[in-house]
Amino acid sequence: VEPLAAVRWAPGFDAVRIIDQRRLPSEFVERDLSTVDEVCDAIATLAVRGAPAIGVAGALGLAAALAAENGAPLRACAERYAARIRAARPTAVNLPRAIDRVMAAVRAAPDADIARVARSVATEILEEDRAMCRRIGEAGAGLIPDGARVLTHCNAGALATAGIGTALAPVYVAAEGGRHIEVFADETRPLMQGARLTAWELARAGIPVTVIPDSAAASLLGSGAIDLVLVGADRIATNGDTANKIGTYGVAIAAKRHGVPFYVVAPTSTFDPATPSGERIPIEERGREELPCVPDGARVFNPAFDVTPAELITAFVSDTGVHYPPYRF
Amino acid sequence: VEPLAAVRWAPGFDAVRIIDQRRLPSEFVERDLSTVDEVCDAIATLAVRGAPAIGVAGALGLAAALAAENGAPLRACAERYAARIRAARPTAVNLPRAIDRVMAAVRAAPDADIARVARSVATEILEEDRAMCRRIGEAGAGLIPDGARVLTHCNAGALATAGIGTALAPVYVAAEGGRHIEVFADETRPLMQGARLTAWELARAGIPVTVIPDSAAASLLGSGAIDLVLVGADRIATNGDTANKIGTYGVAIAAKRHGVPFYVVAPTSTFDPATPSGERIPIEERGREELPCVPDGARVFNPAFDVTPAELITAFVSDTGVHYPPYRF
Repeated sequence: VEPLAAVRWAPGFDAVRIIDQRRLPSEFVERDLSTVDEVCDAIATLAVRGAPAIGVAGALGLAAALAAENGAPLRACAERYAARIRAARPTAVNLPRAIDRVMAAVRAAPDADIARVARSVATEILEEDRAMCRRIGEAGAGLIPDGARVLTHCNAGALATAGIGTALAPVYVAAEGGRHIEVFADETRPLMQGARLTAWELARAGIPVTVIPDSAAASLLGSGAIDLVLVGADRIATNGDTANKIGTYGVAIAAKRHGVPFYVVAPTSTFDPATPSGERIPIEERGREELPCVPDGARVFNPAFDVTPAELITAFVSDTGVHYPPYRF
Repeated sequence: VEPLAAVRWAPGFDAVRIIDQRRLPSEFVERDLSTVDEVCDAIATLAVRGAPAIGVAGALGLAAALAAENGAPLRACAERYAARIRAARPTAVNLPRAIDRVMAAVRAAPDADIARVARSVATEILEEDRAMCRRIGEAGAGLIPDGARVLTHCNAGALATAGIGTALAPVYVAAEGGRHIEVFADETRPLMQGARLTAWELARAGIPVTVIPDSAAASLLGSGAIDLVLVGADRIATNGDTANKIGTYGVAIAAKRHGVPFYVVAPTSTFDPATPSGERIPIEERGREELPCVPDGARVFNPAFDVTPAELITAFVSDTGVHYPPYRF
């Protein structure tokens, strides 16, 4: 099968082509976004998701929207469009970073070059993301022996990036090398990224994958059926404490109890020098509409992330290699 | 509010009245079952669920079906009906036990007394179940101080019994005594008994309840927001190892890590003298239709239960009192 491209240029560079992740796994639909409205809507409604993928989609989308402007005053357009795309989703750090990088080049460019410069920087961001994924995969593949059974949580795969993913990149590289790898994917309530996305992209790539309810991870780890855990990260503090999708912490505790190595896999950009430890990471709380079975008289607590303390993490895998404790990032 | 009665006699004793738990929490529907078909269907389709409630419903249903027979040869009917109800759900031990108890009395009774004897024994089973719940509640209420925040998993409440429940009985008794208790209920994938049933019955009783995704339990325990955990049990080995709804083990590991007391609450009938330890408890595996988001190319592993080792259990609460380690049941 052709490698998955969750975010890329449409032919002619006049639109960003994304896989609509709201439709997966039942339908595979690609969409071309060429206006600022389309780009913002796709990001806000999670048609494109995953911090790296959002950053790339924002940059390509901004460049595509500028290319489509015919005769309009491009410099003013760029500022307006950038502000709108930057705000399409407030929490992902990669999005404002990517937009700011395109805009720095746009602001330094002469009027006639704005569209060309935006496209050029956006393409750089796209290609760097692909290269970052590949380096992470090469760095982590050595941790996955032939026959390994890997547990993962949420989706930090190709669908979350422009390349082969972060947490799943080592799996793809090991499988390319002929190793037989089997993956167990937590469903990942409430939005089911594990069942819908991780299972879909691995099955598509011919890698055996089994979906389990989140609550089955502890007994599966206890039964000896898992050789290692690979998870992504949303933010990593300088002491190694790691925020990731809610449920990661429970998996880490169970892995520790059963002596199963627990690896956090993330690009350098996820390591946050401004956050000394996990207590300082704010946790987004999401709405009750994501838990539709709850009766009216009951409350809901629906945190999007939890923090896994560094002591439960066997090592970090990044585009700069594998990092063992003590952690000082 | 009136106490909840998940299973009881309909007026006139000619039917068993159940709350249809398939419709909760969106609709409160009671159904009267007076034929063997209705009783078997209600048990098989989980309209009535929870091991104690199923046993009571089976016994009352058998007696009601016999009472409705007019002039038929009752002794042969009784044998046929008993065999069918006994098989309506294969795994709950309370169901065959309750049916066997009714039938032992039926077999010893003269022809003219069969219907009356069946009703009488069924009523005994109903009243014993209510009394058992009450005794568990009284035994466990002392463990729940005023202001306590309790985490529970699945539904071992009034909806699972004819009385005030098992794991939730101490909460009801403590609340009756004027203590303010707050409950956090794991959603309990895949069938959502926590969100649908535990939250509904507690909210109805005026006890504050908050639903969380199963995967949020570990970080909630880590945050200091929980004072104790109460869970039910499906089978308890003589060494204290306990089978309960999938996810219980992960909660127990996290509770241990954070020093939160973890209590298993169950009637004497759940302690199985024939099972020396947890490895000997067979774990039912359920179908992929319970995990509807999974794409075709992926497999599913959907165990119904897990086993929590005795070392993680602070104490057992039963109708015979509170039992601390070392356990020898």
